[in-house]
Amino acid sequence: MTMLKVFGQPAATDVARVLTCLFEKDLQFQIVRIDSFKGEHKVPEFLRLQNPCGQVTFKDGDVTLVDSRDICRHISKKYEDKGNKALSGTGFLQRASIEQWLQAEAVSFEPPSSALVFQLTFAPALHMPPDEELIQQNEEKLSKVLDIYNSRLGKSEYLTGDTFTLADLSHLPNSHYLTMSERGRKLFETRGNVARWCTAISARSSWKQVVEMQSEGPGLI
Amino acid sequence: MTMLKVFGQPAATDVARVLTCLFEKDLQFQIVRIDSFKGEHKVPEFLRLQNPCGQVTFKDGDVTLVDSRDICRHISKKYEDKGNKALSGTGFLQRASIEQWLQAEAVSFEPPSSALVFQLTFAPALHMPPDEELIQQNEEKLSKVLDIYNSRLGKSEYLTGDTFTLADLSHLPNSHYLTMSERGRKLFETRGNVARWCTAISARSSWKQVVEMQSEGPGLI
Repeated sequence: MTMLKVFGQPAATDVARVLTCLFEKDLQFQIVRIDSFKGEHKVPEFLRLQNPCGQVTFKDGDVTLVDSRDICRHISKKYEDKGNKALSGTGFLQRASIEQWLQAEAVSFEPPSSALVFQLTFAPALHMPPDEELIQQNEEKLSKVLDIYNSRLGKSEYLTGDTFTLADLSHLPNSHYLTMSERGRKLFETRGNVARWCTAISARSSWKQVVEMQSEGPGLI
Repeated sequence: MTMLKVFGQPAATDVARVLTCLFEKDLQFQIVRIDSFKGEHKVPEFLRLQNPCGQVTFKDGDVTLVDSRDICRHISKKYEDKGNKALSGTGFLQRASIEQWLQAEAVSFEPPSSALVFQLTFAPALHMPPDEELIQQNEEKLSKVLDIYNSRLGKSEYLTGDTFTLADLSHLPNSHYLTMSERGRKLFETRGNVARWCTAISARSSWKQVVEMQSEGPGLI
């Protein structure tokens, strides 16, 4: 088996998504991180990324992928028999459902949550004034999305059934940063099923390991 | 100016030597680190290095160097006007003296101190039984070396005069690990001038930054 390689900072949401998937699949891999220094000061990762969704590059032999969800699809399909075998679902229907929720995460959940992560979690840490109008717009957008999630999560423990899958996993990096701020946390806490689900997925040992890696490194800010 | 690149783990003594030099010269650089994971467990850096003197690779445009002291010579010569301008000495005599002490460090100081770092600092952390015979042999060797250092450091604050240079810098990584153990510390503390010098060079802000980087990363153990 060739050595799987991830290039990027664990603090970046896209990188964190891929790392969580690799840990769930119990795979051996290398992570290559590049940090920039100027004199004794570390150049903040965040300033280089410009947005909290940092780029990730993944190499598996001759295969090179750059989209975090594509990478997760590749890993869970190619290494189906490793680690958490339920990650990519069982049966045709659940697989289709996972794909739907992966799309929902990428298209509907991620854009407003990324904007809120920046405004509510990173901007204050960078001493940047928050853009109240932008926050309200995105809170509104994300609220509508989370209402649908809340309804869905009233019918099953996880998004696609009673097991944790790639669909749930994909939401972890943004949810984590979002719930670091009071206003972000409120969006989850006011929706009982979403709150329960968020607590359950955040307790995965794969994710805890990624959070530990994020705190070890240079961080985004 | 091309981006300077260091490949390796800050916890490795050779890498730490180069990083300290870059910080002293106030240069902008990137560090590229590779960590291996198996499932949720990090493969200890130490097990891959096999010895505490980890490899380092340095790239400056088309120039690639792998010996940490050669890298320090290159940096302090090519970027003479940056940061700490006294690092490579002033005048022909001090430059020759720096070269002598760099050789002494590489040939006489490093081998016994590396052996002791392994036996006194790393072996206990890895739950490996210490080799008492090897410890005594190397304590004896290093004692003789440190006696000469103690005599030299009775005549000037640093090895080649009254300023901190590359000659002193080169001793930092091994001294640091060595003084983490009681027996290692004793070798320094029983020699007043060596003890004073070790305290002075360890207080450099360049070195403190490297120690911080060592504690952030996966470490050697």
